[in-house]
Amino acid sequence: MNLARPIANGAVRCVALLITFVASIAILNPRRPKTFMPLVINPQERSWIPYEPTSHFSLQNIPFGILNREGVPRVATRIGDVVIDLAMLTELGLIPDLPGVSEGVLPLDPSALSQLRSAMYELLEESSQVLRDDVSARERALISARSASMMMPFLARGYVDFYSGIHHASNVGKMFRPDMAPLLPNYRSLPVAYNGRASSLFCSGTAIQRPYGQIKKGDGPPQFAPTEELDFELEMGFVIGKSNGKGDPISPDRAQEYIAGFVLVNDWSARDVQRWEYQPLGPFLAKSFGTSVSPWIVTPDALEPFRCQGMEQVPAPLDYLQHKKWGHFKIELEISLRTKEMSCPEVISKTDSLQLYWSFGQQLAHQTSNNTPIEPGDLFASGTISSESAFSDAIGGFGSLLELTYRGSKPIKIGGSGVERGFLQDGDEVAFSGYCQGDGFRVGFGEVEGEILPAVYKPA
Amino acid sequence: MNLARPIANGAVRCVALLITFVASIAILNPRRPKTFMPLVINPQERSWIPYEPTSHFSLQNIPFGILNREGVPRVATRIGDVVIDLAMLTELGLIPDLPGVSEGVLPLDPSALSQLRSAMYELLEESSQVLRDDVSARERALISARSASMMMPFLARGYVDFYSGIHHASNVGKMFRPDMAPLLPNYRSLPVAYNGRASSLFCSGTAIQRPYGQIKKGDGPPQFAPTEELDFELEMGFVIGKSNGKGDPISPDRAQEYIAGFVLVNDWSARDVQRWEYQPLGPFLAKSFGTSVSPWIVTPDALEPFRCQGMEQVPAPLDYLQHKKWGHFKIELEISLRTKEMSCPEVISKTDSLQLYWSFGQQLAHQTSNNTPIEPGDLFASGTISSESAFSDAIGGFGSLLELTYRGSKPIKIGGSGVERGFLQDGDEVAFSGYCQGDGFRVGFGEVEGEILPAVYKPA
Repeated sequence: MNLARPIANGAVRCVALLITFVASIAILNPRRPKTFMPLVINPQERSWIPYEPTSHFSLQNIPFGILNREGVPRVATRIGDVVIDLAMLTELGLIPDLPGVSEGVLPLDPSALSQLRSAMYELLEESSQVLRDDVSARERALISARSASMMMPFLARGYVDFYSGIHHASNVGKMFRPDMAPLLPNYRSLPVAYNGRASSLFCSGTAIQRPYGQIKKGDGPPQFAPTEELDFELEMGFVIGKSNGKGDPISPDRAQEYIAGFVLVNDWSARDVQRWEYQPLGPFLAKSFGTSVSPWIVTPDALEPFRCQGMEQVPAPLDYLQHKKWGHFKIELEISLRTKEMSCPEVISKTDSLQLYWSFGQQLAHQTSNNTPIEPGDLFASGTISSESAFSDAIGGFGSLLELTYRGSKPIKIGGSGVERGFLQDGDEVAFSGYCQGDGFRVGFGEVEGEILPAVYKPA
Repeated sequence: MNLARPIANGAVRCVALLITFVASIAILNPRRPKTFMPLVINPQERSWIPYEPTSHFSLQNIPFGILNREGVPRVATRIGDVVIDLAMLTELGLIPDLPGVSEGVLPLDPSALSQLRSAMYELLEESSQVLRDDVSARERALISARSASMMMPFLARGYVDFYSGIHHASNVGKMFRPDMAPLLPNYRSLPVAYNGRASSLFCSGTAIQRPYGQIKKGDGPPQFAPTEELDFELEMGFVIGKSNGKGDPISPDRAQEYIAGFVLVNDWSARDVQRWEYQPLGPFLAKSFGTSVSPWIVTPDALEPFRCQGMEQVPAPLDYLQHKKWGHFKIELEISLRTKEMSCPEVISKTDSLQLYWSFGQQLAHQTSNNTPIEPGDLFASGTISSESAFSDAIGGFGSLLELTYRGSKPIKIGGSGVERGFLQDGDEVAFSGYCQGDGFRVGFGEVEGEILPAVYKPA
């Protein structure tokens, strides 16, 4: 894993922000299509770049990210095991010159991304010869995914974490409030959420240092010590691509007009810290030490074929939260873990995004129902996603160790390795993976991964 | 009041962010002094610009803000009733050309602000003739405060709201958990806090629209309706001027090296919305519709003479939260209200910042104790400040209507006007004011004010 925090560095971050906002101004240019035109690519179509049917990065996907090319950020896409440098294609005149791309900033406006995806489809589909037959262009723009290092694909000012995984909320309720109904009375009335810390969003591959925090055990006084209950949280997230001005409310069915795309999120948590700090105002330092994000933004256009009905909502949501069309997408999710003793990661849990009670559209409608301004780059995470039960005898169905090990009290055995885990240990590597299964192809997110580093506390 | 939201506008905000970050890169220039050199100005000294001893803007203050000069942001200071355009002084060669100033962006780096304050002191003190005797320069750079419109003085990525007003926390505890001890067990062990929404921070003078939200009355189902319990919260805030890199912890006594300055904050709240939404993850939409900030950043240098001891902390804080020097500042605070029926505002409450249990330094030490990265522009608010009891028979001592009216059940009578208030009504104007009282002079914050507009809900 890459131990550097690619955009945590102040100067680099400044430059990125700078260019993001140049891009968001420039996005007002007249080339932008006026309407939202999803390009849904026929499931039969293939690219001249070969890939397996199990690849997350099919012709039907065409996600966007930021490639770290010898320290220089380059807007990129990926197909199969090939990463493509879009700034280079722009320079060569092979795709339209969209604002931000040549400066290494991904334009987040949904219309700009639709246009970029259409342009890349034209170059990549099987019968297209322009790029395929241009050896020099291919040498300059195509990079093996194996050797590609990715950077944070967007810069968030706002980061909101929902709590829409109903089985997770219910499991946590059973553990922490055993005498009450597992779900609190508001759960089915509104998508519960809280604000997280945007400054500690990191790109997949960034190592996560075990945080110090106040921990209170039994009747003793609280201690300031490294967390002993470090955990992951399996979440999906969506990234805002378009502002709602001064805070115009957005209805659930129109949410996708404001969404640049979707990512996997690992909202690392220090359970012992949270237990002591969180009353009455919610989680704070138990979360703000790090949240990891997958490097490829999968567009709403690419997810469109996987739109489906969510679970029944009873009682019916209030009008401002009601979808007229289906609001969910079926995304298969899995968690793997590799400890120092293991040569390969092993899958420890499987679930899917239909375990979310509230849709992404309902989440955005709720956030904006009080005129909250949203801005390009804002990240909204779903909350931990857990199934109602285990996936199989050997593989769990929950999105956190808290649930998988019942607060650490029933450690899981990890596959054939003989290793047990209650909570995460230093050196553990956690990876989430997610994809939509099409007919003979996949639209996937790749992975979000991170390794745990030992705690260090050195105050200035 | 100014109904426009000066920096809520997307394009303007983009430009501001852009320039902020140009400035934060440029701040690395060699002119910056290496050490933090507070300029404490002798209480006897006066300026050649006359002002009353009760003016918040004495020679000892020299705060910084952004003047809206015909739509163009200009870095400014204020003395007495005169606002001074610092970009103009820079252009005229009267003060050093600090990064950002000529682009309308306030440099937040504490060393840069110290340097700017020293330069302005040199120009403004009684015996200085350079600006005083230059009629043309004065005509171009000096503006009457009465005609000056101010803009948001900084752009926050992170906004954190603490809960350090111990009497407020205790009052709320008594109201909402009457059967328990008023303070939760963690209150005296750590500065409780949660993340707020930075996108809805507005400059003083921005009108606040009454938000819609889910409200549940008694046993009935929740309704989506305008809040009926709109309230203010009297808070102090500090603005970060320097990053802690990848998240270096900061000790309480070194916090001021990272602080650009201090402001008044009104963290508007919808109490009925909060009551229904906030379990288990804390306040969300009840807060994110708007938070108002005073336009002048008062520097740590200006507050230094008012440093004092806070209330006794029992039990003693854990090491990482311990001050070796005094950590508090005595700031007198008052709240005034003007309803549509009233020609002038009337003071309804008075308190002071020594009602904070946790110091600003302890707050920042806590936030960074888990390696959270902080960034220039981040705002940390104190939590609502309330005294233990009323100021006088006629004037309350609490920082919210929730407390002043006991959840609206005991409306306050507002002075001679005969008007009563439980919670805020449309058209009400709320202003907070705050200052430190020196020997014959004041160092003050001016006001943070806002008017309530009627609710509107029009979804896209």
